[in-house]
Amino acid sequence: MTGALSLHALERFPLVEPGDDLCELIIAALADNELSLRSGDALVLAQKIVSKAEGRYANFEDVIPGDRAFELAEQANKDPRLVELILSEARDVVRVRPGVIIVEHRNGYIMANAGIDRSNIETSEQSPRALLLPEAPDASARSLRDSLKARLGVDVGVVINDSVGRAWRMGTVGMTLGCAGFPPLFNQMGEQDLFGNVLEVTESAVADELSAAASLVMGQAAEGCPVVVARGVDALVSMAEPDATSEALIRPREMDMFR
Amino acid sequence: MTGALSLHALERFPLVEPGDDLCELIIAALADNELSLRSGDALVLAQKIVSKAEGRYANFEDVIPGDRAFELAEQANKDPRLVELILSEARDVVRVRPGVIIVEHRNGYIMANAGIDRSNIETSEQSPRALLLPEAPDASARSLRDSLKARLGVDVGVVINDSVGRAWRMGTVGMTLGCAGFPPLFNQMGEQDLFGNVLEVTESAVADELSAAASLVMGQAAEGCPVVVARGVDALVSMAEPDATSEALIRPREMDMFR
Repeated sequence: MTGALSLHALERFPLVEPGDDLCELIIAALADNELSLRSGDALVLAQKIVSKAEGRYANFEDVIPGDRAFELAEQANKDPRLVELILSEARDVVRVRPGVIIVEHRNGYIMANAGIDRSNIETSEQSPRALLLPEAPDASARSLRDSLKARLGVDVGVVINDSVGRAWRMGTVGMTLGCAGFPPLFNQMGEQDLFGNVLEVTESAVADELSAAASLVMGQAAEGCPVVVARGVDALVSMAEPDATSEALIRPREMDMFR
Repeated sequence: MTGALSLHALERFPLVEPGDDLCELIIAALADNELSLRSGDALVLAQKIVSKAEGRYANFEDVIPGDRAFELAEQANKDPRLVELILSEARDVVRVRPGVIIVEHRNGYIMANAGIDRSNIETSEQSPRALLLPEAPDASARSLRDSLKARLGVDVGVVINDSVGRAWRMGTVGMTLGCAGFPPLFNQMGEQDLFGNVLEVTESAVADELSAAASLVMGQAAEGCPVVVARGVDALVSMAEPDATSEALIRPREMDMFR
């Protein structure tokens, strides 16, 4: 699909505030890093900076937990206000255990705490707040892709990732929350392999693989590197359907054996 | 963790036969690709070439299915001989549906068909055969790492990956079956983030992220690119515990909510 891939994390990326224009920040950071975007590149953005630019903060003092939130908070040993926020972002509760609430986010992701994060945001014991996932990450990715095209004249893929836990495996991996100009899946079903056998199931989640690769270079504690330039994905970027979104990565509930 | 990562797939890698010395083939392919390994690099190998070098073929005509295999074959609509092979590689059956048998492989991976593959191997209707996963991928990775050190004098990480399906998500991603000289997990628990908050859960499955990244450059049908050189992972390679294995990536059964 591609013989060589390089990933560069943009250094010295500024802290992002609500209302910031990510396109502008990225263009400035590219210049600061002496990198230029080319058509066929892809950008991977950490979810946090998109959420921050979109002002997706929730102040705990504004949250009034309902009965269900109190009930789950008791089971999970969590702050009822945090649980109320989780429920407000979820369309189903998948598992509850001490310390963990796994839900189906309203965008379809199965995630602990609906992806709500309290690390790397300015918070305090007096007035705690949390950062929710972007409202519509596919639309956020599309908007940034369009802005980059308008400003720089380049056709790039944009992927928004987050670090998530998984069934069966320890540790988090980068996963796609939204994408534009980059195919979520690369479908080789029905092609023949080297020996002429028809390949049975070889639909690769290429956006998730790119998200994982980018996560490796973003590091975890370093909000300083939330943007990664991927080069060598031209073939994938060029085959992206104009209206493809990351929804194709969500396994439909009726096909899912692990709810 | 690392600001820049590059991945190069070795081109023109030969077809691998049972008994082949992978270290020798890799050294020749590096020369052919005008690449040299440096200490701090990592190599990612597709599972198939390791299995082939280790002669992990199973001929269907040698397989006598038992009652359980016939029963599951009926439920899953599969060849009972293939099902017998799957059962022989598994320590538990997790889900059975028409077309799919998901098991706990005896090495702990939760995988469809115990990772048994019939693509990219020479087979025929008359005498079908399948390729099993390597017997002990961590040991295979360690052996290759040791050979590379002895032959080239370099300290590199070695990861063996495979493309696997997941709960909740469509498409396959590269996942680690075995590793040596590369940390399976990168644990930042208890560190502080940029704002002084203690990070709650930030244990990254860095070996799986590298496996996913490598899968992106290996392509799927191309057995021609089963070896990837990753550069820019020095910090991870240098922190690898001498005896770390990929077992750390297996979520213990009693901690797993999704069996």
